[in-house]
Amino acid sequence: MTLAGVKGFLIDIDGVLTTGETAIPGAREAIQDLTELGYPFRCVSNSTRKCRATLAARLERLGFAIPECTIFTPPAAAVRYMEETGKHRAFLLTTGDVERDFAGACTDNGSTAVDYVIVGDAGDRVTYAGMNRAFRCLMEGAELIALEKDRYWMDRDGLSLSAGPFVVALESATGKIATVVGKPSKEFFHLALHDMGLPAQDVVMIGDDIYTDIGGAQAAGMRGVLVRTGKFRKDACEKSTIRPEATINSIRDIRTLL
Amino acid sequence: MTLAGVKGFLIDIDGVLTTGETAIPGAREAIQDLTELGYPFRCVSNSTRKCRATLAARLERLGFAIPECTIFTPPAAAVRYMEETGKHRAFLLTTGDVERDFAGACTDNGSTAVDYVIVGDAGDRVTYAGMNRAFRCLMEGAELIALEKDRYWMDRDGLSLSAGPFVVALESATGKIATVVGKPSKEFFHLALHDMGLPAQDVVMIGDDIYTDIGGAQAAGMRGVLVRTGKFRKDACEKSTIRPEATINSIRDIRTLL
Repeated sequence: MTLAGVKGFLIDIDGVLTTGETAIPGAREAIQDLTELGYPFRCVSNSTRKCRATLAARLERLGFAIPECTIFTPPAAAVRYMEETGKHRAFLLTTGDVERDFAGACTDNGSTAVDYVIVGDAGDRVTYAGMNRAFRCLMEGAELIALEKDRYWMDRDGLSLSAGPFVVALESATGKIATVVGKPSKEFFHLALHDMGLPAQDVVMIGDDIYTDIGGAQAAGMRGVLVRTGKFRKDACEKSTIRPEATINSIRDIRTLL
Repeated sequence: MTLAGVKGFLIDIDGVLTTGETAIPGAREAIQDLTELGYPFRCVSNSTRKCRATLAARLERLGFAIPECTIFTPPAAAVRYMEETGKHRAFLLTTGDVERDFAGACTDNGSTAVDYVIVGDAGDRVTYAGMNRAFRCLMEGAELIALEKDRYWMDRDGLSLSAGPFVVALESATGKIATVVGKPSKEFFHLALHDMGLPAQDVVMIGDDIYTDIGGAQAAGMRGVLVRTGKFRKDACEKSTIRPEATINSIRDIRTLL
C-alpha cells in the first residue's frame, strides 16, 4: 500500500482544493471524508498577504468545512517557530492583514532590541525607515526570518517586487542568512508537522506542483501524492526526476489510496 | 623619473586636500602650482549625497580655487556615461541634492521606458513605489547604474543602509548586474580620464587610501602617488601588496616629483 501507515495529511490549497474562486469538484467531499475518518490535516498555502482568518473565510464561502486552526501558512509557521524558541520580540515588515496572524504571538516595543526581524511581501509598507530599523535590529543580534523569498509577482498593474529582493538586501547588508519559513523550505514542512504533532514518515503531502509540493515534502521526509488539477502539467512531471508516491486525477480520489 | 610623461592628475578630496572642515597645509598651494604649470586635474570624491556645486562651495570656503567642472564624483561619472552612450532617459533613485548634477543631462517622463536606472544613497527617498518602478524599468530593458555599492554608513543616530543593499535587491530581482560608477571601480576611473581627455598612462592618481585610490588607479592603468595625510596608515601600506609609484608626506610635496 502506497500510503501504508499514513496518519495525517498536508494539503495544498491552490490547485488541490480550489482554482481561482472555484472549489475543485469532489474536494469538499474529500475533506469531509478525511475529517470523518479521523485523519488530522493542515491546509497549506504560501500566501503572505492574507491572514489565516481571511483564507478560512474564503474556503468557507466555497463550501469547505475547514477550521482556521488547520490552515498553515508562512506567518503561521513563523509564529510556530517563535513558540518553539520561546522568544517573542519581533519587528514585522509585512502587510496589515498578515499581521493579524501575529497578534498575541509577538511583541514589538519599537526598539532595535528584538529577537526576530520577520519579512514578508510588505508592498507599500516597505520604506527606508522600515528597512533601516530591520537592518539595525539584525546588526544588534536579531535573527532574520523570511516568510517567502520570491522575486516578484504579477500585480494588476504589472510585475511587482515580492519579499525576496528586500530579504536579499538585508542579507547583503548584514552578512546574515534568512531562515525561510515558506514552502518549499524544509523549515516550513517541519513546522507544519510539529503543528500536527506527527513525524514526517507518517504524513503525506497532497499537491499539484511536482517541485515545491512533492519534491519539498519528500526532502522533508514525507511522502507525496500528486494531483492532476491546478498547475499540474504532464510534461513537467515527465521531465522531473522527482517521483511522487502516487498520482491521482484529483483529491476526490484520495480515499482510493487509504 | 617616477612621474615621467605625466600630463594630468586625479586628486582625492577627502584626506588629500581636506580633513573634515580643514584644508590640509600646503594643499591650496599645490593646486595653485598644478594650475600654473598647466596640468589638467580632476578632484575626485565618492560623495553621492552632495552635488558638485555643494562640494565646490565647500572647497571655496576652505580657500581652494577649484572650478566646479573639475570636481568628479559618481553622479558626474554617470552623466559622463550617458553622454558617451548618447542615451539620456533615466530614472533616478537618489537624494535631492545630487539630482542637481543630473539636471539637463537626463530626462524622466515618469514611464518605465527609460535607458537607465541610476541608484545612489537615496535615504528616505527609498519607497516601495520607487523600488518597484526601478524594477519595472529594468525588466523592460533599462541598464542598472550604481553610484556606489556600500553596505552602510554611520549616520548621527546609528548605522544606516547605504545604496549597496538596494542595488543588490534590484540585481537579485532582475538578474542584471549593476555598472558601478563610484571609486574604486575601473568604470569610475575611466570616465574621469575621458572627462580630462587623457589616456591612463599619462595620468597620476594622488590619494590617501592604498586600496581604493592607489590599487584602483593602478588597476585602471594609471600610476598612483600615496600621501601620508588623511586615512594613511603605515601598517596598512606595509601589509598591502600594492606598491604606489611614490609616497610623499602630503600633496604639498607633489612638485618635488615633477
